[in-house]
Formats: sequence, structure tokens, C-alpha cells
Amino acid sequence: MHISDIGEHALIERIRARVPDAPAWVIAGIGDDAAVIAPERGCVDVVTTDSLVEDVHFRRAWTSMRDVGYKALAVNVSDLAAMGAEPRAATLSLALPASLAVTDFDELIDGFLELARAVRVQLVGGNLTKSPGPVVIDVTLIGSARRRRLMMRSGGKPGHLLYVTGTVGGAARTLEAQRSEGPTVQGSRPPVRLRTGLQVSRNKVAMACVDVSDGLADAVAQLAKASGTGAELNADLVPRAPGATIEQALYGGEDYELLFAVPKRWRGRFERIAGRDVTVTAVGELIAPRDLWVTRDGTRAPLGAGFSHF
Amino acid sequence: MHISDIGEHALIERIRARVPDAPAWVIAGIGDDAAVIAPERGCVDVVTTDSLVEDVHFRRAWTSMRDVGYKALAVNVSDLAAMGAEPRAATLSLALPASLAVTDFDELIDGFLELARAVRVQLVGGNLTKSPGPVVIDVTLIGSARRRRLMMRSGGKPGHLLYVTGTVGGAARTLEAQRSEGPTVQGSRPPVRLRTGLQVSRNKVAMACVDVSDGLADAVAQLAKASGTGAELNADLVPRAPGATIEQALYGGEDYELLFAVPKRWRGRFERIAGRDVTVTAVGELIAPRDLWVTRDGTRAPLGAGFSHF
Repeated sequence: MHISDIGEHALIERIRARVPDAPAWVIAGIGDDAAVIAPERGCVDVVTTDSLVEDVHFRRAWTSMRDVGYKALAVNVSDLAAMGAEPRAATLSLALPASLAVTDFDELIDGFLELARAVRVQLVGGNLTKSPGPVVIDVTLIGSARRRRLMMRSGGKPGHLLYVTGTVGGAARTLEAQRSEGPTVQGSRPPVRLRTGLQVSRNKVAMACVDVSDGLADAVAQLAKASGTGAELNADLVPRAPGATIEQALYGGEDYELLFAVPKRWRGRFERIAGRDVTVTAVGELIAPRDLWVTRDGTRAPLGAGFSHF
Repeated sequence: MHISDIGEHALIERIRARVPDAPAWVIAGIGDDAAVIAPERGCVDVVTTDSLVEDVHFRRAWTSMRDVGYKALAVNVSDLAAMGAEPRAATLSLALPASLAVTDFDELIDGFLELARAVRVQLVGGNLTKSPGPVVIDVTLIGSARRRRLMMRSGGKPGHLLYVTGTVGGAARTLEAQRSEGPTVQGSRPPVRLRTGLQVSRNKVAMACVDVSDGLADAVAQLAKASGTGAELNADLVPRAPGATIEQALYGGEDYELLFAVPKRWRGRFERIAGRDVTVTAVGELIAPRDLWVTRDGTRAPLGAGFSHF
């Protein structure tokens, strides 16, 4: 059965039936012209949007629609984690081919809602439209944070240590394996570093943060640029996912780890607090001259450019 | 020159250069992992999302990219107008073919920002990704309202009069003309009934409102369903756009007018306040039995179903 067989209203009903009861701060959820949310008292709103496009960010042959739905929310949670903001409400906008199977539609929603439940995000609205092209999933995520606890990209200073969570290069390694070996290689879900981002911001043990979505090299460049500094990255220290090359670790993208800038005197507290849920590794340092360097096998060279989506 | 020739960072810079300076309530705009907004004091957040898909909602041969960008925001403003909420901040998510001309990209952004300026909306973030398929434009719009002034769809009661702003059927008439005569027929921009929505909600002269995006018949059905009532629509009273048939007026969609439910004793005040900027016309009434009727040339018949996006 295709989604065009059951129509828009029935699809919305299928979503609504799966969404848990809204908490009290949701004044109007799915079904009106717009959703209505009471802001968190004493907090600012933090808003991010990110999308997944079929055959760009995923292939249906390689990834289950459940994992696609999960990832569509995960990449947005990653952005709020990097700000130190608690996610609260999401909208989900889907452009779908009329031939999509209803079971695939359900799987997509189930994967999205699985993560939503885990991170306590309420789906409050969205949009459904047909498309002659690929599946496009757009998620906007709204969270809250106390203003003084926000971690901006621009908070870095020369001398701050750069720490990365988990390992990098794994997503790129999997993608290359899929390209050469086909759909027998299962994709994996991105990590969700929300707890780490929130703990670090609550305890004020980092001055800046960015999520590693387009490769570690790009994340370092973005953080340094926003902070008005340069950076040195020590490639020999970068924690690589099993089987990942150093190129994949630096330039691969889609890792969704967090990169923090930490004043040296906070090093011990940072490692204790951030290290509760995930390993954290010092991989470099911010420097005053606005240049980007990478040291590899003891040799220092300019840090290459990151990933471009075009 | 195509957008793939200049790359993602340059495209983001082209947007950023066009966005006016942010007001003080925007704590972080374009450029960080997420945008940060101070909520309006004493207000709730009102959130909507809507998208335009090439060859579904527009054709590049028939519509300038400037009008497409304008419309992408306008359809979202319409949703907030129907809630009685003041729009504040928008995110813009674009899935674009790599072959799109940079001039088309600029036009799209210019059209979006033209309306943003007019309704005082700040573009605070977004996402850019390539797509192998059609242009997909997703906008999320966040506004604010005093909770007690919100106009929900569910506020209607039997006996309330149904009023529509402006005229309906014009968008469907234009679309049919374009289908038969081709791109010589120029599309028009949707109306923006924001001021009317805000005036009506501030003065509390309507109990419910919905925007007419999928046809007047669908809007009447949605409002009645949410309110737990039925409705009678008098087709002979429906204000049609020049040249539009009654079918186009009832079922055509894309009109972006507002439909209000107004207690009879507020009729005079409603007409005076809503009528300041646009003509308003009483076209029917909510009724207690949960049936939907349309009277046409004096004959009463069940009101047919509205538009489905699949």
C-alpha cells in the first residue's frame, strides 16, 4: 500500500496516534494552524533546523527507514547539545514520493519518535507534502537554556585545549564500505551526546563547543574562526573509529561528536564531568595567530578545508 | 554560474550579507550550531512549518524565484495570522539541485527577505543541502502571542457566523490558466492577512480562525471539526476572485485568506475591525449537528471533501 492510497489526513492521523500525550507546556500540538508552547521560565529559546535528503544523506537500500527517522532527529539534537540547550519541541516536515510504502512511512515516524522519547522531545507539528523527487525530511528543534550557560562557537581563546568526544571517522568508513560492498554493510545510528553537552554547560567546564557534523577538521576551523583564533590539531592524537583512516577521521563528516574548547586550568574538572558518559580526548589547542595547522607523524602542515555540501 | 561552483560557505555568506541587523532579542543568529532567541515577555511561542516543492507548489517556468521565496514565507505568516500571533523569527531550509543558477538562488533569498522586512521577521538560521531532485523550501516560523488572545480552530460554537477575508478561487483560476495557456500567464503573490488576524485577535472579535490554504470548503470543515460542530456554507455568498468558478472558490486551494467564527452579537465590531484592511464577507454559520452543508442556487447538499496533498 502506498501513501497516496490513504491520503494526507490518514497519514497525519497515523502520526498523531503514535505521539505520546503532550506535557503541560504544550498548549496546542498537532492539528491547529500552528503549535503553541509556553517558554521555559528564565530561559532563552534555542532553535536549529537540519534536513536529510535521500541519495545525499542516506540510501533506502542501505538504511532502514527507522534509522532514517532516528537520524533526522539525532542530527538536530546534536546541534542543541553543542549549545548546551535542552531540546523540548520538534516539527517534522516531510516531502515524500506518492509511491512510498505506508510501512516505510510508519517506520520513519517510529524511528523519529523512538529518539524523541529517549531525549524527551515532543513532536508538536509539521507538514506533509508529496514530491516528484527524493524523500526530504526537515526537522526544526526548539530547546531552552539559561542564557549564561550557553556554549557559543565564539567562546574560544588562545591556549584553550580542544577536546573531542568518542571517536571520529566511523561514518565515513561505513559509507565507503557500503559504496564498495553494497547493502550488506549495515549503517549505524549517530551517537547522541546530549547528556555530555548539558553536563559540560551546566558545570561551566568549557568555553565553546561545536558539533562535528562535517568532519573534525571543519569543526576545528569553524570554532577557531568564530572565536577569532587559529588552531593546532594533532592528528596523531585523534581517536579514530575502528578501521577508519586518518583522512576519514579528519574530513569524513557525519560523526556527530562534540568538540569543546577548554581552558587549561579546567582540564581536570572537564575530563571528570564530560568523561562520565563518553571518552573525551585532547586533540589540539587554540592559538593566537589565525592559522590552522595539523601535525601528523610529527610534521606540521596547514589544515585543509572541510566538507562542502555543494 | 551554478551554486555548486561557489560552494556552501559562499552561499551562506550571500544570505548573511542580505539579512538586516538583528534586533536585540536575537541573541545568536545565523552562524552558530543553533539560533538563540529571547522569548517575548508574557507571551507564548507559536510555531509553524510549511514547505514549497518545485513542480508541486510552483514551476520555475511559471513563477520567478523571487515570488517563490516570497511565497515560502507568506504561507507560514498566514498560519500565524490565523492564530493571532505576531511572527518574529524564521529558519529557512533549502534542498537545491547543484545546477541551480546563483542568480536564482539570490532571487529566492531576496523574495523571502522582502516579505520578512515587511512583516518584521528576522531570519535566524537554516540549512543548505544539495538534492538530486526538485527545489524544496522549508520554512519554520516562530511568533509570539498572549495566551488569552490566541485564536484556535476549536473555539467555534453553533450559531457563530463564518466570515472570509478577500476573495477565494483566484489561485486555482490562475493555475488552470497557466496549465492551458503556459507561462504567459503570470502567477500572483498570495495575500498576507497578518494585520487583519492580529487586529481581530487583539480586539477579541472572533472566537476561532483558520487559514484558507486547501480551499474554503476544507477550511470550513477543519474549523467545524475542531470545534465539534457542523457548518452551513452559502456558496452564493462566497466572494469569488475575478474569473474564478464556484468550484475553484470552494475547492481550489492556495488562497491564503482567513476564515473566522464570529458570535452574532460581535458582528458589527468584527466587520468594523476586520474590515479596515480587507473586505470581509459572511458566508455561512456553524450549526450543532456535526454535518457539513453547502447551499448553492438555493439548494442544500452535503459539502464535499477538500484537497489532499497526496
